[in-house]
Amino acid sequence: MSYELYYWPGIPGRGEYVRLALEEAGADYVDVVRAKKTGMAAMMKLLDGKGSSRGPFAPPFLKDGDLIVSHVANILFYLGPKLGLAPRNESLRFFAHGLQLTITDFVAEAHDTHHPISTELYYEDQIEEAKARAKNFIAYRIPKFMSYFERILAGNPEGDKQIVGDRLTDVDLSLFQTMEGLRYAFPRALKKFDGEYPKLAALREAVRQRTNIARYLASERRIPFNESGIFRHYPELDRAPR
Amino acid sequence: MSYELYYWPGIPGRGEYVRLALEEAGADYVDVVRAKKTGMAAMMKLLDGKGSSRGPFAPPFLKDGDLIVSHVANILFYLGPKLGLAPRNESLRFFAHGLQLTITDFVAEAHDTHHPISTELYYEDQIEEAKARAKNFIAYRIPKFMSYFERILAGNPEGDKQIVGDRLTDVDLSLFQTMEGLRYAFPRALKKFDGEYPKLAALREAVRQRTNIARYLASERRIPFNESGIFRHYPELDRAPR
Repeated sequence: MSYELYYWPGIPGRGEYVRLALEEAGADYVDVVRAKKTGMAAMMKLLDGKGSSRGPFAPPFLKDGDLIVSHVANILFYLGPKLGLAPRNESLRFFAHGLQLTITDFVAEAHDTHHPISTELYYEDQIEEAKARAKNFIAYRIPKFMSYFERILAGNPEGDKQIVGDRLTDVDLSLFQTMEGLRYAFPRALKKFDGEYPKLAALREAVRQRTNIARYLASERRIPFNESGIFRHYPELDRAPR
Repeated sequence: MSYELYYWPGIPGRGEYVRLALEEAGADYVDVVRAKKTGMAAMMKLLDGKGSSRGPFAPPFLKDGDLIVSHVANILFYLGPKLGLAPRNESLRFFAHGLQLTITDFVAEAHDTHHPISTELYYEDQIEEAKARAKNFIAYRIPKFMSYFERILAGNPEGDKQIVGDRLTDVDLSLFQTMEGLRYAFPRALKKFDGEYPKLAALREAVRQRTNIARYLASERRIPFNESGIFRHYPELDRAPR
């Protein structure tokens, strides 16, 4: 039976982190809201608590038969062993999950650069606060997160072609998507990225060239970044670091 | 061998979510930074990437022998089966983890009510933005998260004495801590809480009365909420909902 992915249509958003894993593995999945006319109604029903006593709080979520798994990191932890994307060494799985959760936090902070006060308000209603938050995100948070990931990647005892163990995991795919998103949103801030974080940059390009990923990126299934998603390019928020 | 918990001293913060699980289970653990003179140096060393190629991004983290597990939800997922706090039914573990990750998001939003612009700035430097964010958090986010948890608790096919399955899990303990923190930070906003969310309120009181938890709460190991932590009581941020 196919995996069913539920996510908002029209944006890559958090759903994209799950799509990349499914696509890399060549898994059989249905992107329900995009593929079916009744998809949005089905998603809203589950979000409203109908049809399951164990429904999710928010998209994305994955349905595998009767089981509903929500939150990107949880979905990837669940899928990892099934898709061959978990570390081969079991003791590394909690380390990989910790990295994935660090990416989750980073992505939430990237989102909050354009919505620092409330998701109930428009960006235009919190633009001054967004400028202040983005300034700090660029000056302190991007370097803090990226230096950490660069160090972990460089220090992998199994080599720096992947961040955990001796083969590609979902963490590499999620780093790829995050680097792509940040470059889209903050091209000025990331101008020197490849020089400062050479191993991460090399990983990003290696992921892009993987057979299944390259095919996916060239397909219509890949949704371009846009100003309704997490990574938004607002020129007024982008600036050189410090 | 004892579990070693690493966290900032002086605040309950995110570390408290791990402590509650260890205390409920009567587990053998060392709260390293509080218990040892060399604890802070040991934590900083690991945060600086020394002593392990698989170090954490931020506290709290748990050391179990050579394995380092970071992020509250990951630590609790790891400890759950060892402490008897995971759902008995294995298929419920990913559901429980999803709930725990929803709590993680909720806690991050509670934190950002007093630091909406940057953790690099003092609260006093972002107080107007904090008022705006707190207003929205109280009006929209607390009800959204709490209604969800109340619904899931009320709908548990195994009974509403615990939120997942037929026995206490780490999710119940984390809900307790979150409700306690919110009541500390926002007493006006939560004035009608027990009437609006009766099952959650009953769960909170049931957790408080558990033998090991009651003993822990009365001990010096329990750190009171304060204005350096996640849940801070700033009267100017607290208000009646809408």
